[in-house]
Amino acid sequence: MAVLICITGRDNSKLEQKLRASLPGVEISQWPNCSNLAAVEFVIAWNAPDELWSQLPNLKVVQSFGAGVDGIALKQLPEHVAVTRIVDTGLADDMAEYILTHVLAHKLRLREYTRKQNQQQWKPRRVKAHNHVGILGLGELGLAAASSLRNNNFIVSGWSRTHKEVDGINCYYGQNALHQFLENLDYLVCLLPLTTHTSGILNRVVFEQLPNDSVLINVARGQHLVDDDLLWALDNHQLAGATLDVFNAEPLEPEHPFWQHPLITMTPHCAAITDLATVCEQIVFNINAHFSKQSLKNQIDKAVGY
Amino acid sequence: MAVLICITGRDNSKLEQKLRASLPGVEISQWPNCSNLAAVEFVIAWNAPDELWSQLPNLKVVQSFGAGVDGIALKQLPEHVAVTRIVDTGLADDMAEYILTHVLAHKLRLREYTRKQNQQQWKPRRVKAHNHVGILGLGELGLAAASSLRNNNFIVSGWSRTHKEVDGINCYYGQNALHQFLENLDYLVCLLPLTTHTSGILNRVVFEQLPNDSVLINVARGQHLVDDDLLWALDNHQLAGATLDVFNAEPLEPEHPFWQHPLITMTPHCAAITDLATVCEQIVFNINAHFSKQSLKNQIDKAVGY
Ligand SMILES: NC(=O)c1ccc[n+]([C@@H]2O[C@H](COP(=O)([O-])OP(=O)(O)OC[C@H]3O[C@@H](n4cnc5c(N)ncnc54)[C@H](OP(=O)(O)O)[C@@H]3O)[C@@H](O)[C@H]2O)c1
Ligand SMILES: NC(=O)c1ccc[n+]([C@@H]2O[C@H](COP(=O)([O-])OP(=O)(O)OC[C@H]3O[C@@H](n4cnc5c(N)ncnc54)[C@H](OP(=O)(O)O)[C@@H]3O)[C@@H](O)[C@H]2O)c1
Repeated sequence: MAVLICITGRDNSKLEQKLRASLPGVEISQWPNCSNLAAVEFVIAWNAPDELWSQLPNLKVVQSFGAGVDGIALKQLPEHVAVTRIVDTGLADDMAEYILTHVLAHKLRLREYTRKQNQQQWKPRRVKAHNHVGILGLGELGLAAASSLRNNNFIVSGWSRTHKEVDGINCYYGQNALHQFLENLDYLVCLLPLTTHTSGILNRVVFEQLPNDSVLINVARGQHLVDDDLLWALDNHQLAGATLDVFNAEPLEPEHPFWQHPLITMTPHCAAITDLATVCEQIVFNINAHFSKQSLKNQIDKAVGY
Repeated sequence: MAVLICITGRDNSKLEQKLRASLPGVEISQWPNCSNLAAVEFVIAWNAPDELWSQLPNLKVVQSFGAGVDGIALKQLPEHVAVTRIVDTGLADDMAEYILTHVLAHKLRLREYTRKQNQQQWKPRRVKAHNHVGILGLGELGLAAASSLRNNNFIVSGWSRTHKEVDGINCYYGQNALHQFLENLDYLVCLLPLTTHTSGILNRVVFEQLPNDSVLINVARGQHLVDDDLLWALDNHQLAGATLDVFNAEPLEPEHPFWQHPLITMTPHCAAITDLATVCEQIVFNINAHFSKQSLKNQIDKAVGY
């Protein structure tokens, strides 16, 4: 019953402490301080070094420490290894609230008024007549956002990989329907997982299919976006604005042009911050499930990559 | 059948034109170009000059050109004269959306992140755990705002003059309950009509009863707020911020300290902009109702002043 924590770029002492308290019979160690890698069956991972995986002959489960699995080297895992991720309804509520807030902020011209206030300009304008939101990805987070937007009188369209029917939402699926999905949107929200198929999906070709006064909101992963294509689209009036919570490198480097762009609203990957207590609960559940041979929660399909 | 338009500080030619088109049998004129004031029974007014009222011996109805009647000199009107105002459900929807947007903007720290973006600072913080909104005034606009906030998981309290019961809202009424209403709020929204009882209600005494990290949102009238008391409250950490859509003088004078205050978000009286078509429809309805002796729509109680 050995569990290994291998999450890089983060202090994991609180996590280790909480897991120990909840799992008294389980041996828990943190990479690289593990004396018996051969005994490890369950790994909690995010951006683990490549050399780790070949040293774990008994590996059975990789638990992603995030809502996505883009921090897990799926291709390096033997076929029989199960991969699970974190699904947190609190996270979905926070994400839905973030998206509603930023859609409304564009609709009600908040940044425009902040600028006018700074310049002491009194210039009332009507709210934008922009009510159509398109969501790339209709998973846990996409569906929660869609339902909150619909409850606030927005028209919502959604795009997924497989066919879906969701009450009150115009559903599209697959590459062939992407153009039709995009062509009438006022706001495009990305909530896709990062996979080989979705990496770089927010690019010039997509921006050209959107109406010129539409706004991009990326809250999935920085790698979904081709940064230069966004700058091109904003500077050539193909898009009216963008709100970005995620970036190719985080924290975003100081010399990156996004910081000072007048049409870009940035937040520092805070749209939905996981709650350590909820995360621990799910990890503990899966560790217990694995060692008692019960089924795991929130297992992903390694073949499709999410 | 003579109608007079007396709305100062505004070009009323479109209004006059629309009314003429809808009311072919009615004589319509604009102050001061009216040859027969004695024939006028119906006046559409906003901030009319004091000397007007004594020159209208046949006056029966004053239709306010706004949602409030604070632009009507109620005290100068003979007792038998009816006063009506504009009630527009589109206006209520816009107001509810404005309030939801600005409450969310405070909760999600939008201005804080804008400032950090300008300074190239990457500092993720959790959303504020602030979910309790109090609304002064549970009329057409207050109730619409309350219901939208409640649907978005806010706890809503409301304060009115008379006793009310509204599903899902903690209702308080009268001066005696004001303290209890205020003491646990995260956001205080003013949607009262401007009357002798409500003028200056947003003052130091009220701010001292609110929690120190709460936020004021005034969307009713500038005269509800004692400007110096707000500046005192913000500068002495009695309040964490304010969003103001209305001001004592509009446009706000360039030297006013609100413009540059880091804790004040200003918008130029645009929370809910009346739609001329809807306004005309209601005025036409009331003119027809008056001349055919039917009952008027949206008549106010002159004794209470709203
Ligand atoms: N910014 C933040 O703070 C933050 C926080 C948490 C998560 N996230 C990001 O949000 C992402 C989404 O999370 P989730 O829990 O909603 O994921 P999820 O439940 O796995 O849902 C993924 C959705 O994307 C669709 N999809 C996947 N590949 C596709 C493709 N090639 N073409 C079209 N649609 C495709 C799926 O379609 P099907 O329904 O047809 O399978 C599904 O609807 C995460 O992966 C993570 O990157 C960001
Ligand atoms: N910023 C903008 O763009 C904008 C646009 C439109 C309107 N407004 C403002 O919004 C105001 C409210 O409009 P509305 O249509 O909602 O008004 P309304 O329907 O007349 O409602 C007024 C509410 O205030 C309460 N009230 C009045 N006097 C009070 C007192 N002394 N103590 C406690 N409560 C009191 C009333 O209590 P009861 O229910 O007990 O009578 C009622 O609930 C308007 O008067 C106008 O000034 C602003």
